[in-house]
Amino acid sequence: MDGQRVFGFARPQREPSTEDKLIAAALQIFAEEGIAVTSLRSVAKFAGMSAGALQHHFPTKDALVEAVDNHVLQIIADNLEPAVQEADYTTVTAGEGIVQLMANHPIAMDYLKRVLLEGDVNSGVGQVIFNGLAKISEMQGRRFQDLGLMRDDIDFLWSFLNPIVLRVGAIVLRQHLERFLPGPFYDREQLDRWDASVTNLLQHGALVQHD
Amino acid sequence: MDGQRVFGFARPQREPSTEDKLIAAALQIFAEEGIAVTSLRSVAKFAGMSAGALQHHFPTKDALVEAVDNHVLQIIADNLEPAVQEADYTTVTAGEGIVQLMANHPIAMDYLKRVLLEGDVNSGVGQVIFNGLAKISEMQGRRFQDLGLMRDDIDFLWSFLNPIVLRVGAIVLRQHLERFLPGPFYDREQLDRWDASVTNLLQHGALVQHD
Repeated sequence: MDGQRVFGFARPQREPSTEDKLIAAALQIFAEEGIAVTSLRSVAKFAGMSAGALQHHFPTKDALVEAVDNHVLQIIADNLEPAVQEADYTTVTAGEGIVQLMANHPIAMDYLKRVLLEGDVNSGVGQVIFNGLAKISEMQGRRFQDLGLMRDDIDFLWSFLNPIVLRVGAIVLRQHLERFLPGPFYDREQLDRWDASVTNLLQHGALVQHD
Repeated sequence: MDGQRVFGFARPQREPSTEDKLIAAALQIFAEEGIAVTSLRSVAKFAGMSAGALQHHFPTKDALVEAVDNHVLQIIADNLEPAVQEADYTTVTAGEGIVQLMANHPIAMDYLKRVLLEGDVNSGVGQVIFNGLAKISEMQGRRFQDLGLMRDDIDFLWSFLNPIVLRVGAIVLRQHLERFLPGPFYDREQLDRWDASVTNLLQHGALVQHD
């Protein structure tokens, strides 16, 4: 990919600060309760400080939401960009980046659900992330086409959108799926089992072939 | 299925009433704006009546939400139950019920997104609907197994959950997917194209087979 960054985002490294801790607290309560319904006062209470002290760092809710958005965008970029840059990017590496995100950043994934589904889905970080995932999936599909691996009877547009629906849909519907799973979805055992089933489905379908 | 009803719900037929019109108005504004953030006053205004007149029919927001939930549950049951009762229920008929819902009841589908994702997802109508879909998908999977059509290397649990994620995930992520589609998702042309791609994926996978 010539070092092209899908999410077009890089933040310089620095030591954890009070702002980082506030962002982590806000991320968690936004993910659990929803962004629109959570007040700056609730975030301050959850972080164990006064609303005034919080507003010293983030004067408005918009400023705090923007900081949380950037934090989550950074986490997603850090986990998905390396795989995109690999020359031998495959169905397996595609899933691995998502599994890493779900295993290591479960709260960020619940926040992703919020930004994908709350408010105006045609602007903001939810759109940036979904479009980035679509770009990765399309690049992968084109590589499979170039290698002659893609079935001839495939609808190319949906061939790269369906894998996103399978993976992002599972993140979004996590709590419903967990009623059917023998353990928490974001435990490594469940994630590996799910990832294997998705990869198998994308590669082979579910049914016996009659050629 | 011996006439067993998956959703366990049947409402007697009657003429459209003022309450039906209020339910339709509430369904639309809840679907567009979200259930938690929409007040009884907003619904009344949208329906063109006073809050007092609305409360004559639905004294509380809970009562109105319950009526809308039952209305949507009825729509979903009416569209999915007949296919479940068919002896030759296949991958194709499974998708057809969902496509009918999306084509004919787009607002109910946006409301479904709300009940699946808002508030406590482990209670209420969202859980009833998701569990009903899982039951249909599992019944279909068992039939494929009995007919010897299911691949031997399949993880049975995910073999019936992944098709739900593909279909319900598309309903939930509609507005993101529409940025990539040449027309509105719930137009028949786009729905047929999507349904064909999902059926093809479930049957054959996306990649050329090397046996």
